[in-house]
Amino acid sequence: MSYKAPVKDMLFVLENISEIDKINQLPGFEDYDLETASAVLEESGKFCGEVLAPLNWTGDQNPSHLLNGEVITTPGFKEAFQQFGEAGWQGVIHPVEFGGQGFPKAIATPCAEMLHAANMSFALCPMLTDGAIEALLTAASSELKERYIPKMILGEWTGTMNLTEPQAGSDLAAVRTKAELQGDGSYKIFGTKIYITYGEHDMAENIIHLVLARCPGAPEGVKGISLFVVPKFMVHEDGSLGERNDVQCVSIEHKLGIKASPTAVLQFGDHGGAVGYLVGEENRGLEYMFIMMNAARFAVGMQGVAIADRAYQQAVWYANDRAQSKDLTGSAEPVTIIHHPDVKRMLMTMRAYTEGARAIAYVAAAASDQAHHSTDQNIRQKNAAFYEYLVPIIKGFSTEMSVEVTSLGIQVHGGMGFIEETGAAQHYRDARILPIYEGTTAIQANDLIGRKTYRDGGQVAQSIASLIQETENQLKASGSIEAAAMLKHLNAARISYESVVAHIVANFKSEIKDVFAGATTYLKLAGTLLSGWQMARALLVSEDRLSEDPDFYSAKIGTAYFYAEHLLSQVPGMASAVINGGRSVNQLRADQF
Amino acid sequence: MSYKAPVKDMLFVLENISEIDKINQLPGFEDYDLETASAVLEESGKFCGEVLAPLNWTGDQNPSHLLNGEVITTPGFKEAFQQFGEAGWQGVIHPVEFGGQGFPKAIATPCAEMLHAANMSFALCPMLTDGAIEALLTAASSELKERYIPKMILGEWTGTMNLTEPQAGSDLAAVRTKAELQGDGSYKIFGTKIYITYGEHDMAENIIHLVLARCPGAPEGVKGISLFVVPKFMVHEDGSLGERNDVQCVSIEHKLGIKASPTAVLQFGDHGGAVGYLVGEENRGLEYMFIMMNAARFAVGMQGVAIADRAYQQAVWYANDRAQSKDLTGSAEPVTIIHHPDVKRMLMTMRAYTEGARAIAYVAAAASDQAHHSTDQNIRQKNAAFYEYLVPIIKGFSTEMSVEVTSLGIQVHGGMGFIEETGAAQHYRDARILPIYEGTTAIQANDLIGRKTYRDGGQVAQSIASLIQETENQLKASGSIEAAAMLKHLNAARISYESVVAHIVANFKSEIKDVFAGATTYLKLAGTLLSGWQMARALLVSEDRLSEDPDFYSAKIGTAYFYAEHLLSQVPGMASAVINGGRSVNQLRADQF
Repeated sequence: MSYKAPVKDMLFVLENISEIDKINQLPGFEDYDLETASAVLEESGKFCGEVLAPLNWTGDQNPSHLLNGEVITTPGFKEAFQQFGEAGWQGVIHPVEFGGQGFPKAIATPCAEMLHAANMSFALCPMLTDGAIEALLTAASSELKERYIPKMILGEWTGTMNLTEPQAGSDLAAVRTKAELQGDGSYKIFGTKIYITYGEHDMAENIIHLVLARCPGAPEGVKGISLFVVPKFMVHEDGSLGERNDVQCVSIEHKLGIKASPTAVLQFGDHGGAVGYLVGEENRGLEYMFIMMNAARFAVGMQGVAIADRAYQQAVWYANDRAQSKDLTGSAEPVTIIHHPDVKRMLMTMRAYTEGARAIAYVAAAASDQAHHSTDQNIRQKNAAFYEYLVPIIKGFSTEMSVEVTSLGIQVHGGMGFIEETGAAQHYRDARILPIYEGTTAIQANDLIGRKTYRDGGQVAQSIASLIQETENQLKASGSIEAAAMLKHLNAARISYESVVAHIVANFKSEIKDVFAGATTYLKLAGTLLSGWQMARALLVSEDRLSEDPDFYSAKIGTAYFYAEHLLSQVPGMASAVINGGRSVNQLRADQF
Repeated sequence: MSYKAPVKDMLFVLENISEIDKINQLPGFEDYDLETASAVLEESGKFCGEVLAPLNWTGDQNPSHLLNGEVITTPGFKEAFQQFGEAGWQGVIHPVEFGGQGFPKAIATPCAEMLHAANMSFALCPMLTDGAIEALLTAASSELKERYIPKMILGEWTGTMNLTEPQAGSDLAAVRTKAELQGDGSYKIFGTKIYITYGEHDMAENIIHLVLARCPGAPEGVKGISLFVVPKFMVHEDGSLGERNDVQCVSIEHKLGIKASPTAVLQFGDHGGAVGYLVGEENRGLEYMFIMMNAARFAVGMQGVAIADRAYQQAVWYANDRAQSKDLTGSAEPVTIIHHPDVKRMLMTMRAYTEGARAIAYVAAAASDQAHHSTDQNIRQKNAAFYEYLVPIIKGFSTEMSVEVTSLGIQVHGGMGFIEETGAAQHYRDARILPIYEGTTAIQANDLIGRKTYRDGGQVAQSIASLIQETENQLKASGSIEAAAMLKHLNAARISYESVVAHIVANFKSEIKDVFAGATTYLKLAGTLLSGWQMARALLVSEDRLSEDPDFYSAKIGTAYFYAEHLLSQVPGMASAVINGGRSVNQLRADQF
């Protein structure tokens, strides 16, 4: 079972929900209307479906492996990455001046979704390269930018992010990698980094490592961390490659999933010091890394949507193929299992989560475009705050739901789902990393509850609640059963959300542990609500446009209806757990477990 | 990280919740008081922890494999199975007259939990053997019983259940395997069976296959299926082994988990016909199989509890070992992660599900003992109906929650959880089969909604609701915060449950597809409520006995409190989905997916 990019739903969202026509009016994006988006998505979908999707299973069966310090990637990956670079896909979102295509994020996002759906293990290489490019664009000198970015955009070199160390885990304050200034202005880097995605591989000529390290005498904690570029091969003035730098891959991990993506342990400086170049200023590394991490967190959220859609497509295919048991209302012969209500319930759950998470992510992407490109300072600020609020939700919610959706994908297959050759199990294994890397769900939730909710006294959250209320008012005008169900559950969910936000703001200081005990549930609640809100908007548009394409729009309406009855309806229960449940989380002492 | 049987909690449940003292009063169980139970559980826990648990990871790394038609099991399994048989553990629940120990199910059940927690792949062999013994006890002639059961109880021979065929899946009406009567009263069997757990292995001298097949001229559908014994090696009159029978293992599956347990495709009769012996009467095979399947479904539910506990123990160990980030309330150094609220939330979720599911399963086991051994016909009938109602819930709920719990187990480990050598990922992979085999969750849910709820007009369900109401009354007498929270959520959940049952009974005929669309959610709702009810009973006992052992009982109270605030609180949302959500499940046509 391969993958077909859901271009129609993507364009529906771009047109009606994330409103590409407004992005099209921003300076620099005059060429990016719906028609261009449509052409780009078709082309990208073709490449992803034809070239990358067939290599997904290959990668699971033939993982990357380490041989004499070098990583040999899955057969076919190197060639595919070359095609990917040559076709310009690495440059989709990057500036034209460095050879990129300069697409709005609104259009680059569906492209990224397709890429990850087709082959998540493969797509991690361009995704990390995007992050490294972004970090360099943000903070590097023109010289470093000129030297590294164009080759990375061409797909000739790739990038990595080196944050985690064995003793530190998610706690960057504990980073111990050292950086010593040399006479020529370069640094020598010494230390060990773990969980480095594509930290070593054979798909490109050079690998550009972005590395967090600490200079001698730097302040303790996160305020003493600096960011460095450490190339695998030294780069001459003319751009040609020189000697091997002192960074070695000492092992790669044996993982539950994304087996084709090599996860490296990198050793810097065992033979005299790895040559590195400071990005921006000393001790501001974390700040730069956060900019890049925001992009990466959004991208991981898209991986969640992507793998959910892939699992959904496979499950639908199977449910339409497999005949078993008669229909409940009576049939002479066994029917395909898609006709059994519980199979439909599972498929609808998968579909509703995926469409909802897609829509809110695309809305966030459009907000990011507004935040960066609007000529109106007020619009920029408002959209920046909205985007910042959404990032941890998109990362946390889309990835958590992808674990549930890929699990349902197995369940739809019955016993066949547990057999590896079916392929459903791969999605389940691959998806499980998503709520962990680029900040676990708890880290997203802590960001959401602290920096994004408490810090502004719940203002952004409250402004979102007001927007949802406008949608509720629009739902009142429709007389349909579906709109009525949506109104009922959206209203209850929005009121629950407001209570939760008020609870957080009121108790954050006095009951910090009990409030943080509700962080992850708050994140899931917010994700369920905000995705559901987009489904409500989709429902309204689809009722208006029903006659244009009844099959498509009635399916959108039906999916929104399901979302309301089955997913939004769970929000008040979550709110109860957040508001009343903190004390019960912290009641047992550590030694009582 | 190994496994330590939670004997203390098991004995707590036996003493206070499933009430072993009442079982002890039944004829035949006079020797089985709490003291005996305690000795048995200690001994069983020791064997499981020391002999079987260390082989769990070995089995994952060295799966069973097929070599020239024979399955070579994981190194150490054969020796462990010999020890298991010699120590008498295979006979725990079986009659003394055939060499068993004749324990009540109330005590055999914690033994089974330990076995599966220690090594689920290993434990499947005794579990299937139990099922085969049960089928023979139920329906076989004395001659067949005498010939096969004693050796199986000794652990010298093992048993299998052969139901599924490639074209039929869960639909037993479609079974095509043929059985032809021979002149000597035996039958020749021809056909292919798939997903046969321990269908071939090297751990015992002989394998006794229980096989569903169809005689010539038998009625169509499930009423034409008969049950046969087909030994791997023929058995002479004197019990010695003869020739190889005509049943061959043609392949074993490459699976997501339980890799040490060989899942065989068996070919019967390719060389003239496999010799089989009719069990009971022709065309009553499904009826016999259902008796055995009820036991097997309960056992799989216990596997869910077991693997959840194993994952919980591993997560607690890691959370106590791993220091990372400072405490939220301020600390000089990083603290172990068990002090972070979201880690506690995850551990509490794992713990609350596991304790709740354990308690309701043990209650069911005690009901089964009453149903079979009470001298009072009325008590027998009442308990039989209660047990029958609980079986699909225990199977469905415990296994679904085990998928969530083992996933949380990974999440507690962060990045380490995704690395296979940590072991958390194995539990996640192993658990995923549980909601599928022995009848998927949907099949359990259909059984629950149809045979167990609609058929008696919701009477059994309503009688359970009345019992819960009694517990609510007892909660009112306690003045504690925990009891008040439990009362609030237990009451709301019980009322939701009653509405759902009434909805099902009222609409079953008229809206069959919409009602069945809610079956799985009804099952989860009932599982959450009935487990929560046991947590409420545990809370009441623990408040009474607090001074006897404050650490233990306060942890029980805290866990019940968490269960109320975080799990029971979700029940009204589920009820809404069942009562209002059916139509939205069935709205899209198959071609709209």
